[in-house]
Amino acid sequence: MEKRERIYLFDTTLRDGQQTPGIDFSVEDKIAIADMLDQAGIDYVEGGYPGANPTDTAFFAARRTKTAKMTAFGMTKRAGVSASNDPGLAALIAAEGDAVCLVAKSWDYHVDVALGISNDENLACIAESVAAVAHSGKEAMVDCEHFFDGYKANRAYALACARAAYDAGARWVVLCDTNGGTQPDEIAEIIADVIASGIPGASLGIHAHNDTGQAVANSLSAVRAGVRQVQGTLNGIGERCGNANIITLAATLSLKERYAERYVLGLDEEQLAELTALSHGFDELLNRAPDPQLPYVGASAFATKAGIHASALLKDPRTYEHVDPEKVGNTRKVMVSDQGGKSNFINELKRRGITVAKNDPRLDKLIAIVKERESMGYAYEGADASFELLALRELGSVPHFFHVDSFRVMVERRYDSHGRIKTVSEAVVKLEIDGRTVMSVSEGDGPVNALDKAFRKDLGKFQTEIADLKLADYKVRILNGGTEAITRVLIESIDDDGVRWWTVGVSENIIDASFQALMDSITFKLMKNRALAGRVAAE
Amino acid sequence: MEKRERIYLFDTTLRDGQQTPGIDFSVEDKIAIADMLDQAGIDYVEGGYPGANPTDTAFFAARRTKTAKMTAFGMTKRAGVSASNDPGLAALIAAEGDAVCLVAKSWDYHVDVALGISNDENLACIAESVAAVAHSGKEAMVDCEHFFDGYKANRAYALACARAAYDAGARWVVLCDTNGGTQPDEIAEIIADVIASGIPGASLGIHAHNDTGQAVANSLSAVRAGVRQVQGTLNGIGERCGNANIITLAATLSLKERYAERYVLGLDEEQLAELTALSHGFDELLNRAPDPQLPYVGASAFATKAGIHASALLKDPRTYEHVDPEKVGNTRKVMVSDQGGKSNFINELKRRGITVAKNDPRLDKLIAIVKERESMGYAYEGADASFELLALRELGSVPHFFHVDSFRVMVERRYDSHGRIKTVSEAVVKLEIDGRTVMSVSEGDGPVNALDKAFRKDLGKFQTEIADLKLADYKVRILNGGTEAITRVLIESIDDDGVRWWTVGVSENIIDASFQALMDSITFKLMKNRALAGRVAAE
Repeated sequence: MEKRERIYLFDTTLRDGQQTPGIDFSVEDKIAIADMLDQAGIDYVEGGYPGANPTDTAFFAARRTKTAKMTAFGMTKRAGVSASNDPGLAALIAAEGDAVCLVAKSWDYHVDVALGISNDENLACIAESVAAVAHSGKEAMVDCEHFFDGYKANRAYALACARAAYDAGARWVVLCDTNGGTQPDEIAEIIADVIASGIPGASLGIHAHNDTGQAVANSLSAVRAGVRQVQGTLNGIGERCGNANIITLAATLSLKERYAERYVLGLDEEQLAELTALSHGFDELLNRAPDPQLPYVGASAFATKAGIHASALLKDPRTYEHVDPEKVGNTRKVMVSDQGGKSNFINELKRRGITVAKNDPRLDKLIAIVKERESMGYAYEGADASFELLALRELGSVPHFFHVDSFRVMVERRYDSHGRIKTVSEAVVKLEIDGRTVMSVSEGDGPVNALDKAFRKDLGKFQTEIADLKLADYKVRILNGGTEAITRVLIESIDDDGVRWWTVGVSENIIDASFQALMDSITFKLMKNRALAGRVAAE
Repeated sequence: MEKRERIYLFDTTLRDGQQTPGIDFSVEDKIAIADMLDQAGIDYVEGGYPGANPTDTAFFAARRTKTAKMTAFGMTKRAGVSASNDPGLAALIAAEGDAVCLVAKSWDYHVDVALGISNDENLACIAESVAAVAHSGKEAMVDCEHFFDGYKANRAYALACARAAYDAGARWVVLCDTNGGTQPDEIAEIIADVIASGIPGASLGIHAHNDTGQAVANSLSAVRAGVRQVQGTLNGIGERCGNANIITLAATLSLKERYAERYVLGLDEEQLAELTALSHGFDELLNRAPDPQLPYVGASAFATKAGIHASALLKDPRTYEHVDPEKVGNTRKVMVSDQGGKSNFINELKRRGITVAKNDPRLDKLIAIVKERESMGYAYEGADASFELLALRELGSVPHFFHVDSFRVMVERRYDSHGRIKTVSEAVVKLEIDGRTVMSVSEGDGPVNALDKAFRKDLGKFQTEIADLKLADYKVRILNGGTEAITRVLIESIDDDGVRWWTVGVSENIIDASFQALMDSITFKLMKNRALAGRVAAE
């Protein structure tokens, strides 16, 4: 086998990703994300601007990556001062880290308008700043900002900027499609010209944005044209439409034959199989719902709900899947949904240890109930435990653990005796357990929390059993407009076995919807303790 | 100027889009979406499978498009019966519509395993079915399923399938990357071979999926290789990772020079300027939050929050934007956010008719308050009216219309005298208006609706003024896990002037968060009635 060429992955989640509207990292977030990237086998982690803002300064002081090269980002020195007398550049070089990435204008228009200096002064700033970084012993790289638009406006000057960085000792000259509008074939043509002008592909990088939905394609086009460093962000966050998704890039470069046979990355097979966990872990840190349609790692990436496809898929997955989902840590999914045929249902039930014959009339009834409830707003695709309880109620049996007689939830906001606003939430529940009536009352942080606490205060003889049940997540979705809307609540529960399960409730009343999901969660936990449910979850 | 070639856009939102997990269209949805596509200047609307399921049969009976060609989708005839005796094919031809798209296997493995017929029988099914459609006077097209994977497995047979369709009179032979894993350069190579084999590009289409994040790039690569029909879906919905986003394709083909100078679409400049409304309108119909990072049409697509970029952007937008946002009906946005510098704030305030000097100490205080509140979970990026009220409170003044002494909300669930479960929501509010105390009580569909109704039952002398205020949308976001989480509520209001505004509330208590957003909405409406606020909204 011929020797494969090494491609370096450069992550800019902590720098360009920070420009995403609605995203703002704390020092703790940055430390957690840098650790995730380090473990994932990413080659470079761009951490931010040390010296320019307190968060980034504190982050660089707090964290060293183990294998990834920590990279500080900043400007080239200003014109009119020497590199050694520029405080910004000095802070970059002084920061803990392995590499310094300097952003440089390579479009003559921006040199004139934004920097207000001459083209030659800009070239001198690039060369002197790179030399200063290289002299410090750190790896120097240069982001040629607006490179492709600059090239189209003034080819000779854009090439001169890249060349100034390379000649001064930059390990990497990164060509940036800053405005994000360049097309993959233009990228390839321009990079071929850059290489022809004397900078080897082994020193070139690509930084692409997704403004025409082609950040990944532009990056891969650049790789085919010869660059050896590819920049991106986790889940493709970033300014405007985002950056190239580094997870998609890692998967495609590793798994698609035409790349895998020519190139090799810094991540091994085990790290590749953690990509799904990496993507979801990052969204969890951002506290946002993962996009189910993300390439390779989305919950729907290997899901099918078409009845005909579903049966063929189970026969021979290889012919319906472009890669094996396990290689990126994802799983094949045949959806329980009113789109699905009988075979989907039977398969989904089998996965949960419930066997039912195809001609069993109870199966038709279960399918009809699921269809009816999904039309009301229930979503069993995302609520495995509620689906299992529903199926067991129709096809088997669910013990009658307890009965809820009534509940009442109150929220009051008023001024206390000191004139301060005070909001109190209180819930009262009345249960019957083995013929005994139990009433409990609790306050809470909001009405749902009060209700949850009141329920779990006294569940009679089951109380010790649910002591390790915790609510891990709570999601609300309004299914149509206005405050008279239907509300869907999804609750994720977890116990000390580390098992997680989701339950669902739907009502025009958010409290009532939450109540349904809470009840299903407690019932599932009691079933699971008796090994009557949760076989899949427990695996 | 040389004559530009026509590219045809084919939308499969109603067919392939229907395979998206979580998406299920009613007949009314389908009618609404077909109308949207018709008005948008899309050439073909694939409506579904008439004859195969009741929804699609009813939809085809109910709706004709005005300019777009309505296309029925279905299978080629079965082997062993003649085309005229195949009931499925007969239903397709009989359905109201202008064109019929037949799906045909073009990978020999699937012909054998999924259809269980010989390769020659499959070719005969294709040819006879196409001939039957063409004979009926309708436009015939064939989706060559698994074309690219089939070509790699058995080039001659894949080409023979395409050729059978073409020779039998198919107007379009659509090459489908069914599993979605083909790369843009492979697409180009294979299409060049198809054209060399004798099917002209003017009869070829491309159907691409997004499994490696390159559905748009694959489609454009196919156009450059010579195909003249491009398939996609609204906002890129579809099975697994989705289809090519037809909105992104329309914008790129129309606005990017290397396409615009060679090709022309069926949409004119006015329809192009409706793309943002089309994308948002479709998400509204799906009742989901639009993705702010969508190319061209996302709320963030032309947004910047970087302080330095922001000031340069305002100086000369052309050099920071790859296209003019107005061409697709989008707008430039400089974000109000704690990332933004002073110039962002001043600009945002100016847009709302609020002038403040850069060195005014009240501006620093406002910025500090926004930063603090955003760190608590408020999101002023999405709540323009709450931002304006906050700014006016600091920089100007907001009249003291009314004072809320207290409120109380109760939700009770119990069994009524007939043993039926009953859930009641009731709210009591106590207000002071001009020294007079007003108490109101109301029931509602859920606690927030009860509170909203109680507030608006008696607002004293302001009551007539808020009669036309309606809540248009209500969104809940849980900002961290568990039922003790912080809740953010966003409320969209509308009045008879057709003006819409968003307000925000944040609390650990969902009722309290809703209360804050409701209060801001009513106050904004009263300010707006006095022309004290909402200058931008009213434009």
